[in-house]
Amino acid sequence: MGNLDMNPSFVLRAVQDVAFEDRPVPKLRDAYDVRVHVGQTGICGSDVHYWQRGRIGDFVLNSPIILGHESSGTVVECGDKVKNVKVGQRVAIEPGVPCRRCDYCRNGEYNLCPDTIFAATPPWDGTLAKYYIVASDFVYPIPDHMTLEEGAMVEPTAVAVQISKTAEVKANQTIVVFGCGPIGVLCQAVAKAYGAKKVIGVDVVQSRLDFAKSFGADGTYLPSKPEQGSDPVQHSEKVAELIKKEFDLGEGPDVVIEATGAEPCIQAGVNLTKKGGIYCQAGMGKENVVFPITMACIRALTIKGSIRYTTGVYPAAVDLVASGKVDVKRLITNRFKFEEAEKAFELVKSGRSDVLKVVIEGVQS
Amino acid sequence: MGNLDMNPSFVLRAVQDVAFEDRPVPKLRDAYDVRVHVGQTGICGSDVHYWQRGRIGDFVLNSPIILGHESSGTVVECGDKVKNVKVGQRVAIEPGVPCRRCDYCRNGEYNLCPDTIFAATPPWDGTLAKYYIVASDFVYPIPDHMTLEEGAMVEPTAVAVQISKTAEVKANQTIVVFGCGPIGVLCQAVAKAYGAKKVIGVDVVQSRLDFAKSFGADGTYLPSKPEQGSDPVQHSEKVAELIKKEFDLGEGPDVVIEATGAEPCIQAGVNLTKKGGIYCQAGMGKENVVFPITMACIRALTIKGSIRYTTGVYPAAVDLVASGKVDVKRLITNRFKFEEAEKAFELVKSGRSDVLKVVIEGVQS
Amino acid sequence: MGNLDMNPSFVLRAVQDVAFEDRPVPKLRDAYDVRVHVGQTGICGSDVHYWQRGRIGDFVLNSPIILGHESSGTVVECGDKVKNVKVGQRVAIEPGVPCRRCDYCRNGEYNLCPDTIFAATPPWDGTLAKYYIVASDFVYPIPDHMTLEEGAMVEPTAVAVQISKTAEVKANQTIVVFGCGPIGVLCQAVAKAYGAKKVIGVDVVQSRLDFAKSFGADGTYLPSKPEQGSDPVQHSEKVAELIKKEFDLGEGPDVVIEATGAEPCIQAGVNLTKKGGIYCQAGMGKENVVFPITMACIRALTIKGSIRYTTGVYPAAVDLVASGKVDVKRLITNRFKFEEAEKAFELVKSGRSDVLKVVIEGVQS
Amino acid sequence: MGNLDMNPSFVLRAVQDVAFEDRPVPKLRDAYDVRVHVGQTGICGSDVHYWQRGRIGDFVLNSPIILGHESSGTVVECGDKVKNVKVGQRVAIEPGVPCRRCDYCRNGEYNLCPDTIFAATPPWDGTLAKYYIVASDFVYPIPDHMTLEEGAMVEPTAVAVQISKTAEVKANQTIVVFGCGPIGVLCQAVAKAYGAKKVIGVDVVQSRLDFAKSFGADGTYLPSKPEQGSDPVQHSEKVAELIKKEFDLGEGPDVVIEATGAEPCIQAGVNLTKKGGIYCQAGMGKENVVFPITMACIRALTIKGSIRYTTGVYPAAVDLVASGKVDVKRLITNRFKFEEAEKAFELVKSGRSDVLKVVIEGVQS
Repeated sequence: MGNLDMNPSFVLRAVQDVAFEDRPVPKLRDAYDVRVHVGQTGICGSDVHYWQRGRIGDFVLNSPIILGHESSGTVVECGDKVKNVKVGQRVAIEPGVPCRRCDYCRNGEYNLCPDTIFAATPPWDGTLAKYYIVASDFVYPIPDHMTLEEGAMVEPTAVAVQISKTAEVKANQTIVVFGCGPIGVLCQAVAKAYGAKKVIGVDVVQSRLDFAKSFGADGTYLPSKPEQGSDPVQHSEKVAELIKKEFDLGEGPDVVIEATGAEPCIQAGVNLTKKGGIYCQAGMGKENVVFPITMACIRALTIKGSIRYTTGVYPAAVDLVASGKVDVKRLITNRFKFEEAEKAFELVKSGRSDVLKVVIEGVQS
Repeated sequence: MGNLDMNPSFVLRAVQDVAFEDRPVPKLRDAYDVRVHVGQTGICGSDVHYWQRGRIGDFVLNSPIILGHESSGTVVECGDKVKNVKVGQRVAIEPGVPCRRCDYCRNGEYNLCPDTIFAATPPWDGTLAKYYIVASDFVYPIPDHMTLEEGAMVEPTAVAVQISKTAEVKANQTIVVFGCGPIGVLCQAVAKAYGAKKVIGVDVVQSRLDFAKSFGADGTYLPSKPEQGSDPVQHSEKVAELIKKEFDLGEGPDVVIEATGAEPCIQAGVNLTKKGGIYCQAGMGKENVVFPITMACIRALTIKGSIRYTTGVYPAAVDLVASGKVDVKRLITNRFKFEEAEKAFELVKSGRSDVLKVVIEGVQS
Repeated sequence: MGNLDMNPSFVLRAVQDVAFEDRPVPKLRDAYDVRVHVGQTGICGSDVHYWQRGRIGDFVLNSPIILGHESSGTVVECGDKVKNVKVGQRVAIEPGVPCRRCDYCRNGEYNLCPDTIFAATPPWDGTLAKYYIVASDFVYPIPDHMTLEEGAMVEPTAVAVQISKTAEVKANQTIVVFGCGPIGVLCQAVAKAYGAKKVIGVDVVQSRLDFAKSFGADGTYLPSKPEQGSDPVQHSEKVAELIKKEFDLGEGPDVVIEATGAEPCIQAGVNLTKKGGIYCQAGMGKENVVFPITMACIRALTIKGSIRYTTGVYPAAVDLVASGKVDVKRLITNRFKFEEAEKAFELVKSGRSDVLKVVIEGVQS
Repeated sequence: MGNLDMNPSFVLRAVQDVAFEDRPVPKLRDAYDVRVHVGQTGICGSDVHYWQRGRIGDFVLNSPIILGHESSGTVVECGDKVKNVKVGQRVAIEPGVPCRRCDYCRNGEYNLCPDTIFAATPPWDGTLAKYYIVASDFVYPIPDHMTLEEGAMVEPTAVAVQISKTAEVKANQTIVVFGCGPIGVLCQAVAKAYGAKKVIGVDVVQSRLDFAKSFGADGTYLPSKPEQGSDPVQHSEKVAELIKKEFDLGEGPDVVIEATGAEPCIQAGVNLTKKGGIYCQAGMGKENVVFPITMACIRALTIKGSIRYTTGVYPAAVDLVASGKVDVKRLITNRFKFEEAEKAFELVKSGRSDVLKVVIEGVQS
């Protein structure tokens, strides 16, 4: 698979149909591009979603794409105008390069650019290949003491950094995070690194709560299920009250981050947020949910959605990992060779509660 | 009714039970208070709601209260430490005086103070009486050329100013307001006064749209009803698309203000807001609604609730009225004497589409 | 001069040495560029400064450049990927195109990009030629009823819009603008269009104050000169007090915009700004001034510098002109043919108080 | 001195004239007040300034005042409406209680209230007495494991927290602090607690730099003095360049905090701040300084003054101390009994470089 002239790739040909292909080595598109020899790639729920369902929202798989978008690697070729990196530099790759010309891009909101080339989002190829071409300002040097595995984990860390930016997480705040999967616990660790006073993690799986407690959370909470026949919204209010009491949160936390997308969590989260506070929707589940809108109005809440990353987020994520403030190594529970990519995907699909983050090693040269 | 030693009052004794009472003239509570001879009082939907239902949210009528909270009047007595007004000064009255000591008050968010004394919100008496006692920093001088009727209309104008502040309405923006009742059209007029580029009003009553068009809106829209059996959320998406096209709003308006509380408007409004834009919930209807939360997340919307007023809002509202930028006189469709208060309430209750704002003259001295 | 194959240009060859040159018609650099047939060009103080001194700050004239940067025109050629305009479209030209790749650009602060190609800033050619090449997202369509003269005036209007954005000018505020030249009066008119409550213009020339009063200001002030031997900083404090009293500004205006760069204005402006208010430095004069820093500290002022333009500013400026909210035609006091460009520059250099804005017509085709 | 019915006090009778007086025990002024038995009091430069000069700015000593404003203590009496503390509660005292009624207070900017009763600021008595009366919402419980000495150090910590709030200090930033006295090093420690990426302390005394390095700073810098006859502003530009290079700060730090008030530091600080960055003036020295205003303008800097404290700042400071994130004990270099207060003041006056913070124990009961 290590043919020097070829680009071995893990391709999603159609729904539930993956295969290894030997593609030509991709070429730089302009003088600002770099070619990266991919080192490590984490698997994300969205990768599995495309594999199993072939679409997320408006993005539909109509032709084969290479999978993968959470990658690190080593720069092997630089365009003439590249200044920030050199051949041999180890980097984390930001997987979406925006158009740079629309109003969103020009206004610093490139996460909203409709013309972003985003790895492994149809019709764009991803990073599960030997090589990946990307604009040089979207690769970020990692220091020598950081491994390529940690480099791959910069992506989910960046997601958490963006969520924290959207949620305006600040020092001295109290914060409740719904969800103790990789993104949830990363949000908790980032909040602690930012000087939060108290961070509480909520999940329905005790082992995830245990991990959260050891990773960043000051406290954790396992909500009860509503009794049969009870009103779910009223139950969510009760859960909110119980969390406030258990953790001495007074009128509620300054910030709630919802990282599950589950309807009961959304309801509890809105009810939990203190008046004038911020509720940040980061998880995605059902498209429409029953939502306590009057509560949001009377309490003057600010409810914000977080998506992708903006400027400064990747460098912050690299620094949080490099400085040891966020110990991403602990999230990696399973490792696979490139040739075992499908097995890796099967494992993520299984949803086993002992699996946090799965990484796939790149093609050796 | 004009007994000098008494305070004739329009009292809600119990649900659907109002009566005139002769109460003692209220006394200043401290050296910062003023006594106002009430001049004009507008009736608000919430007044009617307490009258008919006896409660709004956690506020429950357990003992009689004087109704009314949208008032102007003339200062007739000042505490020793009052500096901003003198006896004889005509003023608009801000109806809620906060505790000044809680964290919300100390942080400039006094609209969230749980201990606010708010006129005609149980258990606090309102302004439909000859006299009303209020802290002097919550009365605002009105200029000579402004009538007391206009002074009473400062309250709904202030509601619209607060909504615009919450929605971060700025010059050069495009703004869609759902609802063309008094608050809706005031929001539209305020947006125009703030230099908005394009303001669109939406309502299901054509006569209200016609008024909106003549009052502040650059354009108006009457949404169709969903076909029988169609999915309401999908219909709301269609409505959003139609509004964008009709008014050339590109990716959507910068700001959506929802001033109806109606579920279909909430759904259409969220779908309409441009990526990264602001949706402001100002109207209140059903406590819980089916809500397109994934859309809010992917589009990185900011959703904010607006409630009551904050510092600077009343002076701004006085100035908008005094300068003629917002011509509140046109909103007043019906006038009643104090003795006719119940008739005035009946008219508002009727919900006639030709009734915008009803005002009640104060007790003559 | 109208040779179809050539690009007649008004060139600054060296300090105080201008000449007309017939240059080749410039070519599109990439598929996103457009070629504009320049219609009208306003002259700015900085153009004259380069002509007379050959440098502004770090920008030094080392080789000839075409002068001019305040231009409108008609699109005559579009690259393949241009979508926002077509051949024949009349446009206002934003004169600086940033690199789109540095952190400033990616963060929405492209006005700070060190690699901006800015018209008539060495070593970059300006717009005083028949044709100008520019990225298509930096030309903005103007409506049919706007003249090309008004299109050229979009540039100074955009400067005022950016200043207002930096100064966070909002509705209902009181604002004092030091300077009643073109930028000063435009700032005043923009503030009024944004719903400012009271706008005061300050200048040392009465005729400029008269124009300001008729253009946008609610009031104007001509400060006295300090008495011989008096302390200039103390004099500035006195001027600040007098302005507050004359215009009933209480503790001072919410916002001060300093558009002269003159030391006494800077001192008076800082002393004038109300506690917690914003002082915006927009004018440039002496590099270093005696500055009341303790006052700025004790009063918790926010002092901000404004430079160039950011996203949304040009469209806002086009709309302010197109809607008639800012009547830029009244600023144009003198008109010249392209062949008379040097005469036009001489007039601006003269600094005659009856000269506000001078425009030069483009080369006719 | 411990007479139960008296209030032994350390009084500034006139400039350079202090004495112990036995005053009557002060009474609660209203039902929200508490009486605190003062436990420990730190001495601040401003205390010494009033003692030696009798004035700071507009605050002039016209009659005797008790000195001291950095205090902790134990609540010994509560008004009827006090809810947040009980008799026996150990607290940190916020020394300024605002009027609660002016626009600044109502807007959350009570640090700007002109009618604040501020301890030891003429004409208001301070805390260097056995008892002090203060509004209950301006005392903050400290946990059992915090000493009263640490409680007294909450005040300078709160000053640093307010400066950090004003300077908008955020995680992942680079920050340079001019000054390594108590406030300077506290700003450095707070920035680190908030997740700053790199914090540099600057001072002209090596021993202070050594302490700063051990306390919170990642690096420190001792600037050279300008050569005789050289231009001081140009020297400050050079210092700024050297700091950027030495600490790999690229275009400059995101935030500069100036905590000395010294003119060369102000000049260097403004020149050092990166484009679009924030420079915060926290120190006070000469009223007017030569200031690089054009640099501030071209670079679109935001320059902000910080003064006193706002809501949430004291609780944050208590938490930073209680959690051990800011180890204030290390700042206390000298301890005195109440009877030795004058000796303590003499020591602070001496300005010895080995003296950081001096505290005075309260009167024992």
